[in-house]
Amino acid sequence: MSRWKGLIQEYTEFLPVTEETPLLTLHEGNTPLIELEQLSKEWGVNVYVKYEGLNPTGSFKDRGMVMAVAKAKEEGSKAIICASTGNTSAAAAAYGARAGLRCIVVIPEGKIALGKLAQAVMYGAEVLEIKGNFDNALDIVREISKKEPITLVNSVNPYRIEGQKTAAFEIVDALGKAPDVLAIPVGNAGNITAYWKGFKEYHEKKGTGLPEMRGFEAEGAAAIVQNKVIEEPETIATAIRIGNPASWDKPLRQEMSQMEQLTM
Amino acid sequence: MSRWKGLIQEYTEFLPVTEETPLLTLHEGNTPLIELEQLSKEWGVNVYVKYEGLNPTGSFKDRGMVMAVAKAKEEGSKAIICASTGNTSAAAAAYGARAGLRCIVVIPEGKIALGKLAQAVMYGAEVLEIKGNFDNALDIVREISKKEPITLVNSVNPYRIEGQKTAAFEIVDALGKAPDVLAIPVGNAGNITAYWKGFKEYHEKKGTGLPEMRGFEAEGAAAIVQNKVIEEPETIATAIRIGNPASWDKPLRQEMSQMEQLTM
Repeated sequence: MSRWKGLIQEYTEFLPVTEETPLLTLHEGNTPLIELEQLSKEWGVNVYVKYEGLNPTGSFKDRGMVMAVAKAKEEGSKAIICASTGNTSAAAAAYGARAGLRCIVVIPEGKIALGKLAQAVMYGAEVLEIKGNFDNALDIVREISKKEPITLVNSVNPYRIEGQKTAAFEIVDALGKAPDVLAIPVGNAGNITAYWKGFKEYHEKKGTGLPEMRGFEAEGAAAIVQNKVIEEPETIATAIRIGNPASWDKPLRQEMSQMEQLTM
Repeated sequence: MSRWKGLIQEYTEFLPVTEETPLLTLHEGNTPLIELEQLSKEWGVNVYVKYEGLNPTGSFKDRGMVMAVAKAKEEGSKAIICASTGNTSAAAAAYGARAGLRCIVVIPEGKIALGKLAQAVMYGAEVLEIKGNFDNALDIVREISKKEPITLVNSVNPYRIEGQKTAAFEIVDALGKAPDVLAIPVGNAGNITAYWKGFKEYHEKKGTGLPEMRGFEAEGAAAIVQNKVIEEPETIATAIRIGNPASWDKPLRQEMSQMEQLTM
């Protein structure tokens, strides 16, 4: 088995890659699709999990980040910036370091346990605390990225989705075709959008079929299911504790409305 | 790229696999070999890291455990048992659950923070606390495994090394030949033994060369370097905080003495 070269080299033809794009990689992707033998028997269907925790920094965020940071480098950016306290900041810091770019993480003062940021700090990110809440932090990084040669790598960065869609390619490659159903948690709906884009693009090129997409929100943060802003979203699944997905990513929400098969 | 089938199917010819051996897998192995580009430039040599944390339960222990548990299942064992508070118990619990075997973890009463065992408990292991220290726990699991149809999966289980050696295969597969040097931390010397066995077996079959093996003990737990038992070993690297490697695995220590290129 040859060595996995990372997403940019493995899926070049499906990604916004030019001759100038650096072949950045921490060998992200290539995560196992594990068949759940006992649940499959019990339920009478073949159930698999895509184990995305086995990406280099521990989450699927690496897929989008490798693409976003490679493009930032290609475009001559000197730094990347994001508002995040979790997996996004860890991925940004790791790929920033790898690409030789400064990585700046902006967080609300006093509201973040430093432990949550430990991974990003270890990878060399500079952490800036600002007065205000998380939305203010996001506004600030947007402003900075407009004025300075610093690339915003929050999920509004369109290359994030491009990289993330590769998870769908891997599933199809492993199964030989698209699954019947994809079930996935939904926060701001970025990941489900990326999978859907991936399945569509592969299908157009290879005729591998399209799955039914089933998104799942946490009961206490089900803004899309209830079609309203949840002012104080609550769930132990902090990554999908998002009460107003539209405020994060309006383009994603529009894309979602095209996913007619989406059941939530 | 075809789907990685796990160690037993990928390296069948190098493993003690029969037609009766179950094709147990959580898709362990296939971990990335990441080139450290900047250190390589700085040092003037090509430096790679084998990122074993990307195995299913988070450590290289999965490699040996999949083999040990598959053989336990093949031999008709009803349960597996180990004395461990860390990665070994997590791996045992995961592969035990996957194989449909009970997993029993024996630990010294009152001396273990439950957090360290959380992973094994989540995978369904039964945890038994005994009066005494860790060596007593190890004695007890050895005794039990002699009397009952319960397989001991601590590192004295010879199949552990067989599975672990596959990491060497993957490095050779990725580079096209053996590296010049393998540098590795040493506790009870199980992993360095396994890598050496892997490089030797691949070389015998494929002529892929042999690396110089360099083992590194922590200063406060350097029993092999100092050639004496360290009564109270100390290091923040808990996995190699071992003061008396021989008491753990005499066969391994004997194998070590054959590794003439070992520098410590």
